[in-house]
Amino acid sequence: MITITFPDKSSRQYEAGTTPLQIAESISPRLAQDILAATVNGEEWDISRPINDDAEIKLFKWDDPEGKHAFWHSSAHLLAEALQELYPGVKFGIGPAIENGFYYDIDPNGHTITAADFPKIEAKMIELAQKKEPIVRADIAKADAMKMFGDRNEEYKCELISELEDGHITTYTQGAFTDLCRGPHLPNTAPIKAVKITSLAGAYWRGDEKRNQLVRVYGITFPKKKMLDEYLVLMEEAKKRDHRKLGKEMELFAFSSNVGAGLPLWLPKGAALRDRLEQFLRKIQKQYGYLQVITPHIGNKMLYVTSGHYAKYGKDSFQPIHTPEEGEEYLLKPMNCPHHCEIFKAFPRSYRELPLRLAEFGTVYRYEQSGELHGLTRVRGFTQDDAHIFCAPEQIKDEFLKVMDIIFYIFKALKFDNYEAQISLRDPKNKEKYIGSDENWHLAEQAIIEACAEKGLKARTELGEAAFYGPKLDFMVKDAIGRRWQLGTIQVDYNLPERFQLEYTGADNQKHRPVMIHRAPFGSMERFVAVLLEHTAGRFPLWLAPDQAVVLPISEKFNDYAYQVAKELNAADVRAIVDDRNEKIGKKIRDNELKRIPYLLIVGEKEAQNGEISVRKQGEGDKGTMKIATFAEYLTDEVNNMVNQ
Amino acid sequence: MITITFPDKSSRQYEAGTTPLQIAESISPRLAQDILAATVNGEEWDISRPINDDAEIKLFKWDDPEGKHAFWHSSAHLLAEALQELYPGVKFGIGPAIENGFYYDIDPNGHTITAADFPKIEAKMIELAQKKEPIVRADIAKADAMKMFGDRNEEYKCELISELEDGHITTYTQGAFTDLCRGPHLPNTAPIKAVKITSLAGAYWRGDEKRNQLVRVYGITFPKKKMLDEYLVLMEEAKKRDHRKLGKEMELFAFSSNVGAGLPLWLPKGAALRDRLEQFLRKIQKQYGYLQVITPHIGNKMLYVTSGHYAKYGKDSFQPIHTPEEGEEYLLKPMNCPHHCEIFKAFPRSYRELPLRLAEFGTVYRYEQSGELHGLTRVRGFTQDDAHIFCAPEQIKDEFLKVMDIIFYIFKALKFDNYEAQISLRDPKNKEKYIGSDENWHLAEQAIIEACAEKGLKARTELGEAAFYGPKLDFMVKDAIGRRWQLGTIQVDYNLPERFQLEYTGADNQKHRPVMIHRAPFGSMERFVAVLLEHTAGRFPLWLAPDQAVVLPISEKFNDYAYQVAKELNAADVRAIVDDRNEKIGKKIRDNELKRIPYLLIVGEKEAQNGEISVRKQGEGDKGTMKIATFAEYLTDEVNNMVNQ
Repeated sequence: MITITFPDKSSRQYEAGTTPLQIAESISPRLAQDILAATVNGEEWDISRPINDDAEIKLFKWDDPEGKHAFWHSSAHLLAEALQELYPGVKFGIGPAIENGFYYDIDPNGHTITAADFPKIEAKMIELAQKKEPIVRADIAKADAMKMFGDRNEEYKCELISELEDGHITTYTQGAFTDLCRGPHLPNTAPIKAVKITSLAGAYWRGDEKRNQLVRVYGITFPKKKMLDEYLVLMEEAKKRDHRKLGKEMELFAFSSNVGAGLPLWLPKGAALRDRLEQFLRKIQKQYGYLQVITPHIGNKMLYVTSGHYAKYGKDSFQPIHTPEEGEEYLLKPMNCPHHCEIFKAFPRSYRELPLRLAEFGTVYRYEQSGELHGLTRVRGFTQDDAHIFCAPEQIKDEFLKVMDIIFYIFKALKFDNYEAQISLRDPKNKEKYIGSDENWHLAEQAIIEACAEKGLKARTELGEAAFYGPKLDFMVKDAIGRRWQLGTIQVDYNLPERFQLEYTGADNQKHRPVMIHRAPFGSMERFVAVLLEHTAGRFPLWLAPDQAVVLPISEKFNDYAYQVAKELNAADVRAIVDDRNEKIGKKIRDNELKRIPYLLIVGEKEAQNGEISVRKQGEGDKGTMKIATFAEYLTDEVNNMVNQ
Repeated sequence: MITITFPDKSSRQYEAGTTPLQIAESISPRLAQDILAATVNGEEWDISRPINDDAEIKLFKWDDPEGKHAFWHSSAHLLAEALQELYPGVKFGIGPAIENGFYYDIDPNGHTITAADFPKIEAKMIELAQKKEPIVRADIAKADAMKMFGDRNEEYKCELISELEDGHITTYTQGAFTDLCRGPHLPNTAPIKAVKITSLAGAYWRGDEKRNQLVRVYGITFPKKKMLDEYLVLMEEAKKRDHRKLGKEMELFAFSSNVGAGLPLWLPKGAALRDRLEQFLRKIQKQYGYLQVITPHIGNKMLYVTSGHYAKYGKDSFQPIHTPEEGEEYLLKPMNCPHHCEIFKAFPRSYRELPLRLAEFGTVYRYEQSGELHGLTRVRGFTQDDAHIFCAPEQIKDEFLKVMDIIFYIFKALKFDNYEAQISLRDPKNKEKYIGSDENWHLAEQAIIEACAEKGLKARTELGEAAFYGPKLDFMVKDAIGRRWQLGTIQVDYNLPERFQLEYTGADNQKHRPVMIHRAPFGSMERFVAVLLEHTAGRFPLWLAPDQAVVLPISEKFNDYAYQVAKELNAADVRAIVDDRNEKIGKKIRDNELKRIPYLLIVGEKEAQNGEISVRKQGEGDKGTMKIATFAEYLTDEVNNMVNQ
């Protein structure tokens, strides 16, 4: 008999050789139906693999990332099996699970595969899945593996095997398909009920552009047909909300290959939007005692050697900048913190100055592979809404409370009503991995936990997820179509104050080392605008909308009056434009509704005579006729109510 | 007989061999007394040097840069003569006139010279000057020159001679001192009436750090003792106003060698000041239809090859940034214009969009030798208040008028009451030197001239001073102690639109090339803050002052009330701080007056009881007692009156 211990620390006795699936069955048939993967003593484990010794066990379902991962990994094998049957002779590279689905890299070996083939592949996968083929794990010697894959001309697999140590090689087989694989996998293919092949791409073998280009086949699968349908609707909606598409349509930003990939050019409407967000944050930060600073976008290389950033980013990022004078090397700054540490050090500091909250909308540059760039969410230059709070260890809790106030204020003003939080603490079993004293860690961790409790924030607590330099609190928002975005990390840091030898004179007249807190509620202006665009589908809240109102003259006769209205509104700080095209008013209304402008102001004979406008609000319809100034006040009130809650 | 033509195109006959001095004497004895230098057919000319052919002549007095230049150049020779007499065996490098005075680089050859020796050197120079020694020019063969300076062991002079072509070598001699020199010089040393040796510095021979280090002796001389006295007072005053000193005292900015020389860190008070200036400019620019954009601080190297900036800055500036991906090279941007051209090109443009005014507070990086760095006026990274106006050629005049409005608005708000303007046109004799059509040049030049006339601006017109790519208008302001600073250039550019192949569709449905206008009224935020600091001696106008008011409790008993006052004022957007030190009120008043805070608010028993403050204004004294809110309104009105004239 062996003892199986569950996450809640309860334990039960089982016969040696029991599988996780059998354990689940012993608890409830429903659980047995739902589980997809397990860990045994922290090791990933097929649910059909026997357990021979005492163990701690975790069971994962679809809603756990680990469950989805096993499901999609098995689906990748199913895809390979289908391709092997449909295109005899194709050779296989690698086929992992990814964040949303899976892919398999294949050498088509003469076959041509196009999007037109997707239905055929999907049908074949479903056909194979319905056979309920068991997925069988085997331990195998290296020589046997080489022979097996060599016999099949699987040159890519052979190359991978040649690099493995003997004695640790496993394969998984279902039907006629065997793959070199560590697992874990589903017990059989039956749970895969719905399949969608999503796209094709080229991918160099092992990411090396000097080697063969393979075809990467992307797909996603689900345990229920309904889930796939929902996913497809979501994808369709996500496509409509793609910030790259909206950013272009709304003339917010552009990229130019002459300037460089991943380096956004903020167009007038985008720059103005970004400025409104910046002013909004500046205002609340000022109320919370933040002091804005401005630092250069480069720094001596040694500054980043001191901070440790050079070791972290150096080789893979923008390389050092040389100068005509010898002995000087600069780096594009990947982080603002070292510069802020230097500002802290510009004067002898007293405890009376703490907490010192230095804030900067600081643009940083980090190199990303060109293939990884994506609109405004993955760029090479971005502006962080950065701040560093230098404080005494006993001030951490209060500072967390204050930063949380700011984050909640932002979430509310921007209607992110749905969010989760995670507290990342150190692994209590591996204390030596972390910098900073035991006492300080305890203080900081308790501060975060207590701050969350005081705010009534239900936060998941994860042990071992803290950075080596301090614990943190993360927020994840759910957007309007249910996608999760990480926004707003509050990170304690014991490392940089140490590396920069920061100190202040305490009330005891002794030197003390401050703690740093990093925080950027937006993350970066680029990413935040992208998230906002995707969250709102470009229908920004009134106070952010690039154009708040468009004046629509019912015929060209009233164009002059329309421009007069726009001018008066502009003077009252309302962002109003005119649609003076010679089009029917119905078409103008439809076109401008599509343009996501919150207010449509229709003007004709009567309005021009009375100095009035007819107001239509997007999504709400007719608001009646009013004086220009009345509308300006009405709109200004609406804006103020949104921002000053 | 020869014909001498004067700048006013009048001419007179003189005997061949007449000198400029004699010509001056023929006009008036007073002029003869005042002239210091001349040009003959554009060539620099000693006033004692004979003219043998018909010539156009210009005569220069002390108030002309050319006059001062000759005076200080002769003074450098006088310094050398004095040093030769005082320190036998010293060897001479070069000794030019500079912007304020002159220097001579010497190899002391065993002698030690310190600041303590300055009076002795000054006395010797005066003694020699009073001998009224003639300064005699001689043409000399290269071999003779080598022999003459070789015999005297003047190795530095010999090196210079060895690089000259034979037949063009001249020397100047006064007393026992002969120098290798092109001139021009004064006829004799008598006009040099007042001497000040100002400083010593080390300087490598020929600026090469691998060669001998020489001693550079700086000095300044004047034709009148009174002028020297005035100069010394001015220097003393300039020292007090040195923006580097004030910037430190007022905690506006700092430098850190760890970040890098010439890369300012804007501290909270400085960043806030800079932000106020930026908001001030943004506001007026918005009224004039400018659209803010934001572009990255780097760009693909090819972008600057296209713009021509790489050819101009490439070798001597920050070197290209390499990346892990091959084939990519980026440059720190030395200019914002190429990025703005790319924004222009982001869409097909119509004449209806012109003038398109793209503005950016854009930080650019240009490498300066470490020895040339100076506070905020000579830095390696600076933020331009940049804008580029893309317009049709016929819109240039109107755009100049509008930019001038903005510049005059700034000068008025910041009390630069004293300024001059210069129109720089092309050299009509060398039209081929310039890019752009004859017609467009004529149009642009006329536009600038007419715009100045319409504004009633008296501007000096200089032919041949235009950039090769377009004419321009420059402003020079005189600061409070009479120094001149260049602020606000408006520059027409036909070059970049050509290089970037910019075009728009005209009303005629044809493609046209726009003109660009570059303009930056402040120049850069860094330099402008430096100029403002030196102009105001740190006593910023109320709307800019880092702290607008300081609350002074008459004893510690009233500290709480003082903080309450500051809090109420802060809430009303008044920048108020508290001086809660345990000091006598008299000392507090004196200390805070030195801190350049415009308003001192004194609070004691009576004020605390009545919710009032006793107001003192810097330079104006007691303003009586008033309610806190009354003062806040009073101050806000004062600010608004300053900015919204």
